Amino acid sequence: MGFGEGNKSKEEMMDEWSHVRSLVNEELRNLSNSINVPDDLRKAAFHLILAGGKRIRPFILMLSSAMFGVGYNESLPAAISVELLHNFTLIHDDITDKDEFRRGIPTTHVKYGEEIALVAGDFLFSHLYYYLVNEYLKMGKDPSLIIKIVAALSEATDNICIGQVMDLMPEKYIEDENDYFKMVYYKTAALIEASAYIGGILASCSPSELENLRNFGREIGIAFQIADDILGIFGDPKVTGKPVGNDLRMGKKTLLTLYAQKRLDKSNRALFLKVFGNRRASEDDIKRVIEIIRELGALDNARSIMRSLKDNALSYLRKLPQNKYREYLEQLSEYIISREL
Amino acid sequence: MGFGEGNKSKEEMMDEWSHVRSLVNEELRNLSNSINVPDDLRKAAFHLILAGGKRIRPFILMLSSAMFGVGYNESLPAAISVELLHNFTLIHDDITDKDEFRRGIPTTHVKYGEEIALVAGDFLFSHLYYYLVNEYLKMGKDPSLIIKIVAALSEATDNICIGQVMDLMPEKYIEDENDYFKMVYYKTAALIEASAYIGGILASCSPSELENLRNFGREIGIAFQIADDILGIFGDPKVTGKPVGNDLRMGKKTLLTLYAQKRLDKSNRALFLKVFGNRRASEDDIKRVIEIIRELGALDNARSIMRSLKDNALSYLRKLPQNKYREYLEQLSEYIISREL
Repeated sequence: MGFGEGNKSKEEMMDEWSHVRSLVNEELRNLSNSINVPDDLRKAAFHLILAGGKRIRPFILMLSSAMFGVGYNESLPAAISVELLHNFTLIHDDITDKDEFRRGIPTTHVKYGEEIALVAGDFLFSHLYYYLVNEYLKMGKDPSLIIKIVAALSEATDNICIGQVMDLMPEKYIEDENDYFKMVYYKTAALIEASAYIGGILASCSPSELENLRNFGREIGIAFQIADDILGIFGDPKVTGKPVGNDLRMGKKTLLTLYAQKRLDKSNRALFLKVFGNRRASEDDIKRVIEIIRELGALDNARSIMRSLKDNALSYLRKLPQNKYREYLEQLSEYIISREL
Repeated sequence: MGFGEGNKSKEEMMDEWSHVRSLVNEELRNLSNSINVPDDLRKAAFHLILAGGKRIRPFILMLSSAMFGVGYNESLPAAISVELLHNFTLIHDDITDKDEFRRGIPTTHVKYGEEIALVAGDFLFSHLYYYLVNEYLKMGKDPSLIIKIVAALSEATDNICIGQVMDLMPEKYIEDENDYFKMVYYKTAALIEASAYIGGILASCSPSELENLRNFGREIGIAFQIADDILGIFGDPKVTGKPVGNDLRMGKKTLLTLYAQKRLDKSNRALFLKVFGNRRASEDDIKRVIEIIRELGALDNARSIMRSLKDNALSYLRKLPQNKYREYLEQLSEYIISREL
């Protein structure tokens, strides 16, 4: 990977990530214990978030801030807000997608019913603003900076809603790979972009530094989703926790299926259409279609796009101050695209 | 009603309300036209809010602010945010309550499907923060003031979520009239309280003025809900647009049913239980139970509580500067409790 001496290794990055994760998890537990709400609301709101999660958005936010000298204690409230926001979208997504499992446990609506789950998502989204504002006012942070974080979070959420509607109506909004990249930007990359950007806001970065952080977050965010898409078709069920070729059964339009669909010939198109979006497709048929997709070059294409997105991300990062936090972000970028291997 | 000469009449208040409503409606239409989102999201998000509505929360906010010299143009963005917030909660409430009509049109989920309606609600809630922050930054408002509005809105929404969970699980959370008043505070009064309070924030009111505004909003907000509860049982179907005794059919725990239930004797308890929560109860049985509720004194009791809440509200108002805006708020308070007559 071309890292010179003195650079942080992947292992050191993973250790730092564990450290940040424990800070985030501790604060989330404190928050869950300190809010004064009916027990059913507390349990439903924190069901998913306390069941685990990589905390990759908080990590990106806190590293982006630390790169400019901001301590973790100072970036933690913003990082928590981003994680609450992410989990609010997961609770609502699971309702709309009728997903029954996540992080190895039943989803919130399966456990608490759709009505309570819907309100629990709303509560997480509402409370993150309250928490964010009050924590930073207590710390004596400049209100003009807090207001910028509020705007960044709501802009990202606007975008997530846009992406969610595109994803819910793919036949209308996702015709080609261009539409796909738009949807992925809105649905996934916008919040990762916001995480890096908010890290910079907390450090009172210059406009050009903020721009580089945004660009970094956007590019690595799209790469992150492509890695997910690859796993959704080629992932090992033992690792993903989902059936082989799950995205095929669900009829999900991804970079891989859009690429393959354009290149199917008459004979394999019939098989593809038999399997795509058919939750009861046989495992044999699924496996045959996975091979077809690979042979058509969809996997190579997705990997190559993912790698150039990662390279772009790194090129933005390298315009920012070199220190161990930047090196962690570099290692994290490599990790993100290697998840699928 | 004891208003001296020189006070604004009910008619003048209604005229002012129409004027405010047209300002609010125009800005909502502008907002709907200016946002750059997929068409299905725009239509679903603005379906209900552009179909009408009294705009009572914007009116309270703008009057509270105007009482201290703040112009309508300056309070409008906060008023719009409160109305967006209210409509977000209506969209989600209609999903959880499976309500099919509101404001004389099909609810959002009936027209656009539950998935899109859920996201449309999320979008309104997300976008109001973005809109609020950006409008006030453009106006050059002090960020420390904007941040207080953000905190007030999210505190109110936290409370609405609490009230919604209590309302969804009445058998667990609403045993007596005390629980009922708590629930009504959270679900209905908290946002009306916030509307008056935010009006005061915009005017940089003193802590004691803010406290009086909050108290006014809370008391009149609870009275508002009791008027609704009275209409829900005794309202004229031609006026309410709902069947006679609708709250009885739905089995809603309200001040009236809680009061009556405690006082039923053996013979009328059986009839009450036959009708309460029974969507297919006969109109004759419903009418008999309505009479029983009236004879038990539930209507008199509700009216008397509603009137003393209104008197409390007015007593807080009267600690604030006397001018035409305060007089409008006084007239509005009288109007709120007279809706049921």
